[in-house]
Amino acid sequence: MFKINDNYLKLPGSYLFSTIAKKVNAFQEANPDKELIRLGIGDVTQPLAPAIIEALHGAVDEMASAETFHGYAPDLGYEFLRNAIVEGDYRSRGAKIQADEIFVSDGAKCDSGNIQEIFAKDNKIAVCDPVYPVYVDTNVMAGRTGTYDPKSETWSDVIYMPCTAENNFAPEFPEEVPDIIYLCFPNNPTGSTITKDQLQGWVDYANKNGAVIIYDAAYEAYISEDDVAHTIYECEGARTCAIELKSFSKNAGFTGVRLGYAVVPKDLKCGDVKLHDLWARRHGTKYNGAPYIVQKAGAAVYTEQGKAQLKEQVGYYMNNAKVIFEGLKEAGYTVSGGVNAPYIWLKTPEGMSSWDFFDHLLEQANVVGTPGSGFGPSGEGYFRLTAFGNYENTVKAIERIKNI
Amino acid sequence: MFKINDNYLKLPGSYLFSTIAKKVNAFQEANPDKELIRLGIGDVTQPLAPAIIEALHGAVDEMASAETFHGYAPDLGYEFLRNAIVEGDYRSRGAKIQADEIFVSDGAKCDSGNIQEIFAKDNKIAVCDPVYPVYVDTNVMAGRTGTYDPKSETWSDVIYMPCTAENNFAPEFPEEVPDIIYLCFPNNPTGSTITKDQLQGWVDYANKNGAVIIYDAAYEAYISEDDVAHTIYECEGARTCAIELKSFSKNAGFTGVRLGYAVVPKDLKCGDVKLHDLWARRHGTKYNGAPYIVQKAGAAVYTEQGKAQLKEQVGYYMNNAKVIFEGLKEAGYTVSGGVNAPYIWLKTPEGMSSWDFFDHLLEQANVVGTPGSGFGPSGEGYFRLTAFGNYENTVKAIERIKNI
Repeated sequence: MFKINDNYLKLPGSYLFSTIAKKVNAFQEANPDKELIRLGIGDVTQPLAPAIIEALHGAVDEMASAETFHGYAPDLGYEFLRNAIVEGDYRSRGAKIQADEIFVSDGAKCDSGNIQEIFAKDNKIAVCDPVYPVYVDTNVMAGRTGTYDPKSETWSDVIYMPCTAENNFAPEFPEEVPDIIYLCFPNNPTGSTITKDQLQGWVDYANKNGAVIIYDAAYEAYISEDDVAHTIYECEGARTCAIELKSFSKNAGFTGVRLGYAVVPKDLKCGDVKLHDLWARRHGTKYNGAPYIVQKAGAAVYTEQGKAQLKEQVGYYMNNAKVIFEGLKEAGYTVSGGVNAPYIWLKTPEGMSSWDFFDHLLEQANVVGTPGSGFGPSGEGYFRLTAFGNYENTVKAIERIKNI
Repeated sequence: MFKINDNYLKLPGSYLFSTIAKKVNAFQEANPDKELIRLGIGDVTQPLAPAIIEALHGAVDEMASAETFHGYAPDLGYEFLRNAIVEGDYRSRGAKIQADEIFVSDGAKCDSGNIQEIFAKDNKIAVCDPVYPVYVDTNVMAGRTGTYDPKSETWSDVIYMPCTAENNFAPEFPEEVPDIIYLCFPNNPTGSTITKDQLQGWVDYANKNGAVIIYDAAYEAYISEDDVAHTIYECEGARTCAIELKSFSKNAGFTGVRLGYAVVPKDLKCGDVKLHDLWARRHGTKYNGAPYIVQKAGAAVYTEQGKAQLKEQVGYYMNNAKVIFEGLKEAGYTVSGGVNAPYIWLKTPEGMSSWDFFDHLLEQANVVGTPGSGFGPSGEGYFRLTAFGNYENTVKAIERIKNI
């Protein structure tokens, strides 16, 4: 008789955003006349930039003729895209990454969920708290997290690094040394970041302790301050301790297009074994490449035209961030984030839990946000709003919040 | 100090098709004047059908405007596509599958590699021998296959079901009862299939023994004979024992477009736990949906126009299959497959191993095929050619093979 992977049964409740979707649907069904504004899930709303649309149409035309048709993509992704990535995201920042260290994928969610597979089951992971749920949930599925304590909402074998107002939302080196450290800056969900010097501290810590850093840089395009690193490979020594994950979802609006990449430097080793070889093997065996037309669209992101158009798009969202940040402050809320990230993190009113505030906002202002506690125990008492709505709705949502 | 998943180190050599690519590249570099014909990897060569190109352009245009832009896709895939699949692939064949039992993905390779994750590590898998390498390799990565014996080229904890000329390439019920049975019909690599009655036998066997069947139906569109099932759910009782994996790669030329789906019926349970719930959790946590434009292209496959155009495309490849089959027979080879599948399976000449014949064909005829032994020990002495080339090259390749 076949048996299931019962680690799945240990997962408490469902994936955060599925739970929110269900709650929102139920509210909408019960109140069909209410017009909801969604500032919850980090989905973008602006259309794809003209340069990307043009690249997509061009690639579709190529697929219509046998001479220019493209079947299976090369294992690591098309060279034209990997070269553009290296030039645009690394060489231009003085970071030494080669095109054959880039693994093109269908997004950072898949990569951040799958990357744990190449590590042994008995590695101990450390995560910021609060944190994007995928890191922990996928380690739960792999049986790496021990037992769940519903009271503290923590796993026995996970090292939590609280990020709260007390430490300016920057994680501190944990007492127990972890094997795998998940870091995400600019941060989802808090919208905060750390300086390049602080990040260098983490790289040094990882190298000293034989730990590996999984660096999620999905929100890099939103960095506006000079002392924040755009890639972990700006830090000395990162090539021997860090894997970086990047997404096209937030800088180019690819949430429904699906493209991302992982960087696994060839200097990153466990004994004699290169993690690059393991990830290459996984990529070649379990994955079959991002669509050709999508990879062409990805390359358009790095053209002069694409860069200019996307700078404007990111600027549009960052203006929303400012509207939310300033508006909430005016309304008397304690807010952070929003400067180097599209996320605004607010303290819920005294006596109100994160989910209380979720219901409150949904019912009173018909605005959907994300409860901070959904990201981990230290997120309790916080709430996330995203700048990815359109401007008019964002203004309206903030007006509504001011009036409740 | 972090540790790697050392199951990866147990994998002998590299993924079959990567090895072939390296050999072919080396030959091409050494012989830049030789014109190679590739009948090896199962990649298609015909351009996308006009109905699909039209759907792609239309969807790209939708992404260009805020009103019709699509961000994150629904967890299971868009309903328009899942409804089209249910109608086109199941209801029309009398198979009872609901739209919420369909999980849209980026292809059958990913699904067939990932599906093992929802099962416990100590399940025993059974595979046909020869077999598509992804089934075994992904179980090796998960630590489910025991130790490798380089002499027999088999894993201690895998049940092999030989499929050779002796049993007409149809697997027999194994002596030891497996927990998970991988079946693929029409078969890759042998190109053979089994009758609906034979498949019913496997469904009955699985239900009786509490086994689950992972049914890979990627080549369904090539079925030409009436007594072959187009889906395992044509068989009585399959809803309680079978997961079906489908691809758009071979029926619609989506190898570079990337689309597939898995069917996990809600009646398929381990005790009280529905596998549907586990796969839904995995899908929601580790995957973020196929691109909107690709899902629109998928829906075009099921339109009247799309169906007519793709019938013609499949017919084109099946004509190639006939050219290969007849040509090899004329040349004195023992051949099978090619009737319900785009693969032709031939016996290598006396005294020549599969890899010997690979080199022989590459060097003497400049034709790339796939060594049968790359698919498992019982594939030794066989060789696979695919019908996915273009007609002119296929004819030319067969002429060359006749002349060596």
